[in-house]
Amino acid sequence: MLRLIFVCFTLLALTRTDGLVQDFCIADLTGPETPSGYTCKPSANATVSDFVYTGLRTPGPKIEIIKAAVSPAFTAQFPGLNGQGVSLLRLDLDPAGVIPLHTHPGAAELLLVTKGVVVSGFISTANQVFVATLHKGDITVIPRGVLHFQINGGGSTAVAFASFSSENPGLQITDFALFANSLPSEIVEKVTFLDDAQVKKLKAALGGSG
Amino acid sequence: MLRLIFVCFTLLALTRTDGLVQDFCIADLTGPETPSGYTCKPSANATVSDFVYTGLRTPGPKIEIIKAAVSPAFTAQFPGLNGQGVSLLRLDLDPAGVIPLHTHPGAAELLLVTKGVVVSGFISTANQVFVATLHKGDITVIPRGVLHFQINGGGSTAVAFASFSSENPGLQITDFALFANSLPSEIVEKVTFLDDAQVKKLKAALGGSG
Amino acid sequence: MLRLIFVCFTLLALTRTDGLVQDFCIADLTGPETPSGYTCKPSANATVSDFVYTGLRTPGPKIEIIKAAVSPAFTAQFPGLNGQGVSLLRLDLDPAGVIPLHTHPGAAELLLVTKGVVVSGFISTANQVFVATLHKGDITVIPRGVLHFQINGGGSTAVAFASFSSENPGLQITDFALFANSLPSEIVEKVTFLDDAQVKKLKAALGGSG
Amino acid sequence: MLRLIFVCFTLLALTRTDGLVQDFCIADLTGPETPSGYTCKPSANATVSDFVYTGLRTPGPKIEIIKAAVSPAFTAQFPGLNGQGVSLLRLDLDPAGVIPLHTHPGAAELLLVTKGVVVSGFISTANQVFVATLHKGDITVIPRGVLHFQINGGGSTAVAFASFSSENPGLQITDFALFANSLPSEIVEKVTFLDDAQVKKLKAALGGSG
Amino acid sequence: MLRLIFVCFTLLALTRTDGLVQDFCIADLTGPETPSGYTCKPSANATVSDFVYTGLRTPGPKIEIIKAAVSPAFTAQFPGLNGQGVSLLRLDLDPAGVIPLHTHPGAAELLLVTKGVVVSGFISTANQVFVATLHKGDITVIPRGVLHFQINGGGSTAVAFASFSSENPGLQITDFALFANSLPSEIVEKVTFLDDAQVKKLKAALGGSG
Amino acid sequence: MLRLIFVCFTLLALTRTDGLVQDFCIADLTGPETPSGYTCKPSANATVSDFVYTGLRTPGPKIEIIKAAVSPAFTAQFPGLNGQGVSLLRLDLDPAGVIPLHTHPGAAELLLVTKGVVVSGFISTANQVFVATLHKGDITVIPRGVLHFQINGGGSTAVAFASFSSENPGLQITDFALFANSLPSEIVEKVTFLDDAQVKKLKAALGGSG
Repeated sequence: MLRLIFVCFTLLALTRTDGLVQDFCIADLTGPETPSGYTCKPSANATVSDFVYTGLRTPGPKIEIIKAAVSPAFTAQFPGLNGQGVSLLRLDLDPAGVIPLHTHPGAAELLLVTKGVVVSGFISTANQVFVATLHKGDITVIPRGVLHFQINGGGSTAVAFASFSSENPGLQITDFALFANSLPSEIVEKVTFLDDAQVKKLKAALGGSG
Repeated sequence: MLRLIFVCFTLLALTRTDGLVQDFCIADLTGPETPSGYTCKPSANATVSDFVYTGLRTPGPKIEIIKAAVSPAFTAQFPGLNGQGVSLLRLDLDPAGVIPLHTHPGAAELLLVTKGVVVSGFISTANQVFVATLHKGDITVIPRGVLHFQINGGGSTAVAFASFSSENPGLQITDFALFANSLPSEIVEKVTFLDDAQVKKLKAALGGSG
Repeated sequence: MLRLIFVCFTLLALTRTDGLVQDFCIADLTGPETPSGYTCKPSANATVSDFVYTGLRTPGPKIEIIKAAVSPAFTAQFPGLNGQGVSLLRLDLDPAGVIPLHTHPGAAELLLVTKGVVVSGFISTANQVFVATLHKGDITVIPRGVLHFQINGGGSTAVAFASFSSENPGLQITDFALFANSLPSEIVEKVTFLDDAQVKKLKAALGGSG
Repeated sequence: MLRLIFVCFTLLALTRTDGLVQDFCIADLTGPETPSGYTCKPSANATVSDFVYTGLRTPGPKIEIIKAAVSPAFTAQFPGLNGQGVSLLRLDLDPAGVIPLHTHPGAAELLLVTKGVVVSGFISTANQVFVATLHKGDITVIPRGVLHFQINGGGSTAVAFASFSSENPGLQITDFALFANSLPSEIVEKVTFLDDAQVKKLKAALGGSG
Repeated sequence: MLRLIFVCFTLLALTRTDGLVQDFCIADLTGPETPSGYTCKPSANATVSDFVYTGLRTPGPKIEIIKAAVSPAFTAQFPGLNGQGVSLLRLDLDPAGVIPLHTHPGAAELLLVTKGVVVSGFISTANQVFVATLHKGDITVIPRGVLHFQINGGGSTAVAFASFSSENPGLQITDFALFANSLPSEIVEKVTFLDDAQVKKLKAALGGSG
Repeated sequence: MLRLIFVCFTLLALTRTDGLVQDFCIADLTGPETPSGYTCKPSANATVSDFVYTGLRTPGPKIEIIKAAVSPAFTAQFPGLNGQGVSLLRLDLDPAGVIPLHTHPGAAELLLVTKGVVVSGFISTANQVFVATLHKGDITVIPRGVLHFQINGGGSTAVAFASFSSENPGLQITDFALFANSLPSEIVEKVTFLDDAQVKKLKAALGGSG
């Protein structure tokens, strides 16, 4: 038996010491990024806390204008996701809540409703409109990069979790891209055909300059 | 204005009729598969129901031996996921429920607990053990292909949803691979060092032959 | 020499008859699609015309509302691109021409100006604004999936060619997604904060219903 | 126990009947190809013979001009490789044998010598030359797509097996691309700076026309 | 001619000095990893020894319990494989040798027998069993991530080489994941249905604690 | 309104400060490379100049021997392309200009003629020859890694731009790989069947040693 144990430790050492497998790559958020993600913290130092994220237990901070909260668990919040190709986002919608028109340039989305009723819609690049009313336990898929939105479809708070096919799906809210930065009004109007008054009203509301 | 509308329809036609974008590829489950998934149903015929799945509203059928239910939303159940790189699985665990040791050869997993307490653990290829106790709203990530398990960690029913980085993560339960098919006992014993009595006991319990 | 030739034909046959390499996969546009693209026409029947496209010699049909023409060479127009991971789009802009705010969900873009002056801008998901004035021979890169636009920046016609990192980059013009389909005005207003009058004006102009 | 067995069969059925995993995709060579490979034969009909190939037991037919034999196990020969991302090629070199300058456009190569001595060299795109002498059990890696060659480096027959990072690495022998087809001599000379006499000599030897 | 040479050096410089191509990325094993592999040593310093590995000439150290030796040529052993998508593993099996049940989470395997007889089997996620008897020169393919094993099938030593579709396929031996680490026996029993005595016996034999 | 602005800045901060999206990864050319490209410069410091390249406005330096100029915009020249999967190359051909036989190991090519007439040809791995005569505005696709060439096909200067499906397509000119480095003549002759005099003549002309 002693010899057996000795031999086993040898085999164990084989798989343990050569570091040849990269099951995971916990992001070192202080280091540089690469096109494939952050550099990894040494895998030998990993603990179970590197693989757990508790930040979605409660809603994120509510944003008054949309009557909703958005709380991501992407690589920046949950470094253990680096390189794993999957991430999550918690949505909380007040009865009048809405997640405005937006895209995720980096991933398809699979939305799961865990409370209340959510109306979720997307527009395909062929300009087809798909709008679904989802109840607790229902899921819907939204293709990568296309415009979509969510609206509370019931009379009470709704909660949903969006899964993504990337650890960094990205998020681009159309209104913020147009009205909450320094993009000049003149350009906004040219590329959207919106009226000057409309653009200026939303720029004022959303904090945009120019 | 008439001319404007006319022109717009022209532009619309440009994006609509050339079929140049593949936002989605709803699986034709009757057709052949390819290494990248099923062939697509014509995208022009897509309706919103192709993008919604309601099969996870309720638990799947309970499996007595594990005191748990597993209900997948992979391509076979939800053809709209074909090619999208993401899928979902609902787990329901009785107080004594367990999801036995298994792997998903095709995807990393992101587990979200929506009710109760779940103990989730995995073993890395470097033979590190990571076991976490998750409460409602907690998430954990499990690298692709490594052995892992879930156990109810509280005194009441637990519910969790596993997201995957593929629409076809696969599922291989170690016990079923060893004891629930025609793999001869002699081979099982040779490749696992399990005792003959143990192998035969589990083969009998799990329906394996040989 | 005769023997040499004989032997050579044998070797040639080896590489020729086994069909083991897929250099190209000319799309059979009549067949079903798959997540990786169209099925291939038999490679033995390929001719040089399958690899050439002359449809970009002249501008596409001008669209009055934008004073511009857009002419794609994606898989639908140029079946030889199927599976090759690259495609092209010709843009012609009148002095007042504009390519309205849009995204390509499936690819990064590399824009080359071949005539005139083009102002090209994009907004990152971090809401940074990058606007460049490009002259003949200049190029700019636009990340996958983010909102961008082009405007004629000179007093004369401008021509540009956009290369993409996919044979099917897709094209989603924000205005068309919002105002040129059946998405109800009420929803448009909720998810964009645009005024009802503005939405109805653009819906009328762009042919949208609802 | 009966109940246990019943339950287990239920679980077994879950993983068995939904066809949700694509471990393998045995090529239906009669069907169309796609950019990701051939369509699959029904996985339920797979037998162990679909996963075994015995065609490399003996050398391929010897090609006199190169004093060598080349025998591939790519998808066309071994349909079980479809989609698996790996393949093999057996090389047999007489004492004077040579595998002429060639590339594999679709894969990196890992060459293992199992008998004799092989000189293997490649030229990088930075025009660095790397030539190695390999003995039995030695391996060398050749980057994807770059020019390389193998020469028998000992006084006896040599055998080697090349593994590839694709099931369809492709093979383009430079001499055959230049001299064994209908590419006109005039063009060959223009694009290689070779002398007319040299081109015509090799075209004659290798069976090229034009 | 002088001018010609001058000009050529200019062209050569073009391809040589701009460093624009990454044919290879020799791992700097001292540096951090990224999700795509290790950082590269400067390519200008590469020598032929970076592309050759002689460590598979002889068997690895024999492991008594399995009467076999396993010797990998993954990135950790052969840094030139970094990023190349292919690797190799040498197996030596005594007449009673066995490679116990295991998976490679990161790659499909192509096994080549170079000496003796090897019985190789895998279990698919659909719980199909495929067991093959391989003789010298035979090859078999094992899908990514599924459970498989090898057993000496003849009366003499057997040697085989496994190629992988990744430079870091990983290796998880089921017995070691269960019995050679700190995973508590109680959990092992719960997730495998193995008897307590069986678990403790194997934990003792394989050096596990808990 | 004040409250609205406050809220919006909160949302803006959400998308701005968490650094969760990697739209772009501007190469830090001083840092190490990884298999996925260079490490990124901090994205917060990006300016529009990082996304624009003006180096293709004019032809590159003419190379007398080929009567042509080649000017790349790959990552090394245009760091903003790092990770974007697309790049460009400007070709200028005198009336007698030629781009000699070459491959791009890392990408398919889409060639656009913007001036004059260009004859572009490639040879498939099945040894098929495809030669096209392209006029201004015509495009042709060349599969990844196969041998191809371009020749001026008219009586005046021709200009073309090649797009690639990678930011680092690589470039291997066959003549330079054979005759412009230290690869010994003896080996060149063995692996190409070229005559000794021919090899030595071209080695002298192209600056090769050995």
